Amino acid sequence: MFLSELIPMSNALNILDENQIIMKTEKIKLEDSYLRVLAENINSFHDSPPFDKSAMDGYALIAEDTFGASSNVIKKLNIIDQIGAGDFSNKKISSGEVIRIATGAPIPEGADTVLMEEYTLINNEGTNNEFIEIHSQVTPGENVAICGEDIKKGNKVVESENIIRPQEMGLIASAGIDAVEVYKIPHVKLIVTGNELVNPTKSLEKAQIINSNQYIIGSMIKSCGAKVDISIAKDNFDEVQKEISESSKNHDLIITTGGTAISKGDVVIDVVDSIGDVLFHGVALRPGKPVGFGIVNETPVFMLSGYPVAAMGQFDALTRKFLFKMQNIEFNPRVEKRRANVKIYSNLGRTDYIRAHADNSQVKSILSRGSGVIRSMVEANSYIIVDENQEGITKDETVDVIFFEDMNWNK
Amino acid sequence: MFLSELIPMSNALNILDENQIIMKTEKIKLEDSYLRVLAENINSFHDSPPFDKSAMDGYALIAEDTFGASSNVIKKLNIIDQIGAGDFSNKKISSGEVIRIATGAPIPEGADTVLMEEYTLINNEGTNNEFIEIHSQVTPGENVAICGEDIKKGNKVVESENIIRPQEMGLIASAGIDAVEVYKIPHVKLIVTGNELVNPTKSLEKAQIINSNQYIIGSMIKSCGAKVDISIAKDNFDEVQKEISESSKNHDLIITTGGTAISKGDVVIDVVDSIGDVLFHGVALRPGKPVGFGIVNETPVFMLSGYPVAAMGQFDALTRKFLFKMQNIEFNPRVEKRRANVKIYSNLGRTDYIRAHADNSQVKSILSRGSGVIRSMVEANSYIIVDENQEGITKDETVDVIFFEDMNWNK
Repeated sequence: MFLSELIPMSNALNILDENQIIMKTEKIKLEDSYLRVLAENINSFHDSPPFDKSAMDGYALIAEDTFGASSNVIKKLNIIDQIGAGDFSNKKISSGEVIRIATGAPIPEGADTVLMEEYTLINNEGTNNEFIEIHSQVTPGENVAICGEDIKKGNKVVESENIIRPQEMGLIASAGIDAVEVYKIPHVKLIVTGNELVNPTKSLEKAQIINSNQYIIGSMIKSCGAKVDISIAKDNFDEVQKEISESSKNHDLIITTGGTAISKGDVVIDVVDSIGDVLFHGVALRPGKPVGFGIVNETPVFMLSGYPVAAMGQFDALTRKFLFKMQNIEFNPRVEKRRANVKIYSNLGRTDYIRAHADNSQVKSILSRGSGVIRSMVEANSYIIVDENQEGITKDETVDVIFFEDMNWNK
Repeated sequence: MFLSELIPMSNALNILDENQIIMKTEKIKLEDSYLRVLAENINSFHDSPPFDKSAMDGYALIAEDTFGASSNVIKKLNIIDQIGAGDFSNKKISSGEVIRIATGAPIPEGADTVLMEEYTLINNEGTNNEFIEIHSQVTPGENVAICGEDIKKGNKVVESENIIRPQEMGLIASAGIDAVEVYKIPHVKLIVTGNELVNPTKSLEKAQIINSNQYIIGSMIKSCGAKVDISIAKDNFDEVQKEISESSKNHDLIITTGGTAISKGDVVIDVVDSIGDVLFHGVALRPGKPVGFGIVNETPVFMLSGYPVAAMGQFDALTRKFLFKMQNIEFNPRVEKRRANVKIYSNLGRTDYIRAHADNSQVKSILSRGSGVIRSMVEANSYIIVDENQEGITKDETVDVIFFEDMNWNK
């Protein structure tokens, strides 16, 4: 397979859109749902709170009975019952009466407010006093959480296609629901290719290179809310073909690194071309021009470079969005404005993902010679993205910056 | 135990600082280290690349041999060997000679540059041509990644006390290291107290409240890079004492919800006071004034409110920082500037965590009556923090905003 023309990023993204797959759904326990994506609207079975509830420890009473009370005019009210949390009273309050009440307990009939314990003159804690003395007024409704003020029965409380954060879990629980329909987690196969690759070792032989992509791309896949299996293959047509062919049957997505050189046949591209379709090969993207995308047995295959930094750029520019969308989440990282403190060259028609370091006000590019320089990714905390319609950036221009941490799933 | 005086947030944070614990460390496999915290400096066993490496598929040659080549002046050079990835050549290049070379392979002796395949006039792919024809000049060093340009042998490549992201994993691997010393993950016990609490159900009985804190606070603990066990206890001194006492022996941190009312004895505070030390109870914080902190058997105990939103505020204001620091990471979420589109009241001396919704330019508070309103946390995406030295915020003032997503571990 031989392709020498680079397509613009916008075309590549369109091709990905047209071939986007979305995971099936499954029912899981609410307790396991943190950071999963809802695949159903959640409607509440209950009002929440389910009854008028005391928001304080104190005394349920009729607000009018306190009117006129002051430090000079002490009012005395009779205690007729007490209600602990999880308990309730069958007694009804009349004028001149109060019921001692715990936080969270239901307001007894007749009462319209709760007077906080600290506003009573006598501390009744642990005693059997039959009355309280009060010296301040309360207004009706004070310290009462009204039935349904948080959630109304039957109302939609959380919408489908949202990542479940702690607060959504709480709201779903309060709605009376302990199991939710969510999108399945994409199961990704990462195939790292290269004859020269060895695992981390203290003693390298000549021509050997340590396989860092298995760690880098493997954890980037995790940073998209997906799970990953990893295998290593030699630059050998049959071996790569066997790996891709088998993976396409039991994984939702395949990502390869290495074997994507442009302007000559290269093993991964050739394999996908022989057992599936290569939909693009070569994108006007820097770093990361030799990137491919194809389909084998209905399984999408992202073919990334063997160079770690090129592979990272390709992943962030193309794969990340696709992986998020597999769980029906749009990848829309926050874009920040910063002042560029260097001039940056680019070409019209090419999209640049420039490794950069941004602080609160400015951003500078992390200069490095080659795309093999992982160190620049460690020193960088962000990308400056130079759009295909821009020719570069002048010094002191305000530019768009995306922080690496904002590209993660967990938000 | 009876404490009626609220301490300022700054005092509470000082007390937490003085009682901060840091986890012990452990050695784990590099492949399991994503988002763990390094507890050692990483020095490289290798130069990286470990040899002068070709950055392209092409021909290794002597740059000077190309000088003068142009579309009119074609130069012809002899191919004396070829080197695949993972392979090397023992031949030395002399003037007029080239060696065909794959990306990632070692530059052969004598050569000082690599000419890209596409700049040769004859495509030699799959053929046995003995020469190439070239029509352009190259400069020395082109397409060559110099030995050690990324990492120098013996140099520190990653510093201790950093969260391991994909790029750090790659750099550590390239350094020749496959196992790293990291801080242990804090093992937290969450004890949710309350007689009124039941698990999510469609049919609530009178006075029952669904236990949402087990989900909310449970997943907030996970959002700090920690793991959690959860138990439920009645508002009963003996039951709570048994839970806290046992948990203090086999967990690194205890978090409780409920039983922290101020101005009267309340069960959780009383238990910690009886079997350990309550170091503060009551902080000038809204929402979340009735929050306590203590130590039982050298295990820190955060005593949060039963009200979900109060508990969330207390967790974000106090507990989150402590949990991060247990893995020796400072909790320093990005602070953004936004224009407040409402006036916000606060009191001098009190810190307010105002649930808010921020967009690219402005922020508005999510108004709600009570602190029991989880819905406000679902609608909010950020906090406006009103410092204890501020009396409030005027409309159109620029304020500090922290996005919820920036408070998570994964960044």
